[in-house]
Amino acid sequence: MTPVISKEELSEYLAEVFPQVWSQFEIMEMDGRHTVMKLKVNDRHIRPGGTVSGPAMFGLADVSAYVATLAVVGRKALAVTTNCSIDFMRKPEAGKDLIAHAELLKHGKALTVTDVRLRSEGSEELVARASLTYSVPPVKS
Amino acid sequence: MTPVISKEELSEYLAEVFPQVWSQFEIMEMDGRHTVMKLKVNDRHIRPGGTVSGPAMFGLADVSAYVATLAVVGRKALAVTTNCSIDFMRKPEAGKDLIAHAELLKHGKALTVTDVRLRSEGSEELVARASLTYSVPPVKS
Amino acid sequence: MTPVISKEELSEYLAEVFPQVWSQFEIMEMDGRHTVMKLKVNDRHIRPGGTVSGPAMFGLADVSAYVATLAVVGRKALAVTTNCSIDFMRKPEAGKDLIAHAELLKHGKALTVTDVRLRSEGSEELVARASLTYSVPPVKS
Amino acid sequence: MTPVISKEELSEYLAEVFPQVWSQFEIMEMDGRHTVMKLKVNDRHIRPGGTVSGPAMFGLADVSAYVATLAVVGRKALAVTTNCSIDFMRKPEAGKDLIAHAELLKHGKALTVTDVRLRSEGSEELVARASLTYSVPPVKS
Repeated sequence: MTPVISKEELSEYLAEVFPQVWSQFEIMEMDGRHTVMKLKVNDRHIRPGGTVSGPAMFGLADVSAYVATLAVVGRKALAVTTNCSIDFMRKPEAGKDLIAHAELLKHGKALTVTDVRLRSEGSEELVARASLTYSVPPVKS
Repeated sequence: MTPVISKEELSEYLAEVFPQVWSQFEIMEMDGRHTVMKLKVNDRHIRPGGTVSGPAMFGLADVSAYVATLAVVGRKALAVTTNCSIDFMRKPEAGKDLIAHAELLKHGKALTVTDVRLRSEGSEELVARASLTYSVPPVKS
Repeated sequence: MTPVISKEELSEYLAEVFPQVWSQFEIMEMDGRHTVMKLKVNDRHIRPGGTVSGPAMFGLADVSAYVATLAVVGRKALAVTTNCSIDFMRKPEAGKDLIAHAELLKHGKALTVTDVRLRSEGSEELVARASLTYSVPPVKS
Repeated sequence: MTPVISKEELSEYLAEVFPQVWSQFEIMEMDGRHTVMKLKVNDRHIRPGGTVSGPAMFGLADVSAYVATLAVVGRKALAVTTNCSIDFMRKPEAGKDLIAHAELLKHGKALTVTDVRLRSEGSEELVARASLTYSVPPVKS
């Protein structure tokens, strides 16, 4: 699968559509199959003990699957998450950004399925894994 | 199952442990089996179009399962989410708080399983459903 | 939601389409929202210790969500499971049939979401819970 | 992670413990992290149209995660599935065996998490993906 949009165009689009939250994220790599995203961890994401909160990890997994989906379907505000299953496996390291590796497993007519693995930056250990389904309504032309 | 802690004590404890986020939540009802929670929706939870964000919905489901778990195991900072499966079914209504009905399905020695259903306040329609597993390490006495 | 097909018609249809497996199942109740199904447990479903196997429980959950879906969309061989999340909570009782209570949570244009709870016949205790998404391609008329 | 038991010993053990079903399966490869399993598809697994049934795919994913778990914890009949999330993505090819690639993502004190990907033999296309949690009660010595 070849991306139908560049990393730069997609970043610009998302900054426009999600002005409140996009600045936390960065698309590091993106082809039609693999996407690497960063969550720039700040105080808002932190829980007692310095660990990144569950909702922040969920949010990173969700936005990574969204980017992986838009990479192949183009800018469609209508792509929506219908299902997510997430396993939390280890505590993220305190004071580190979180890196997501997303792999687009299915690009169907009506939905995409993406596998996402989260790690603390610079670490090999998995912090969490998630799989997400996005519903992608066919565009009427 | 009878709760081993009162709604008031638990609220106080959570306000202490999660000073940054607890003020968004309210325990409306809580017995040993059913827990009703509210997310007081504010600008921070909102996405374009007035809808509540996915991470905010995940956060409400997660905290509801946490409260349902603490209700039967008592204050144990060590209860951690190990798995969540969530289905997003309808858009929340703009300008409404979100209500979670949590039902503790299993209270085992090492883990709890909770089913959570989310609705916009005053509505019958399901916005999302989730099931969450909490790992509850045995307390050494 | 009102069922668009009767319990008897649907049973007949499923016996035709799944001749190898349908005889294990029975639709006990079915309206547009709630469906009750039975798995008539036999040697083929049993594991050492007399417990019903995981695949047999998955199969019952899956067929229950299928029946709950067909009840509102009619006979469409094209409804297919796209996702299942299942929590196994207690061992089924040896020598008992399994009963599934399915609740249709969403009946959308492209998919249905069903919650299923499994118990040993005559018991209150949950053996497992599952949520299943069926993709229901629009019928071309 | 190094396996604590050989492929041959584990196969022998499983043939003993699951005499009814083990003959359908074969451990093709097994180290402490990756496990490759085959489901020898027969009439019992087939649905109209020649496709492998959902329960048969679930069963293969489940047994693959079980083998991946036993590879690192040794023979413990007590390892039980607590959760499975599975996405069905494409129809398996008619007349082909199913191959599962399992990756052990977490080997914790109380549970393991395994990712499993299913393909028809000889094909690159994913048929399904699953993640499974096994509860592994600590052995009393």
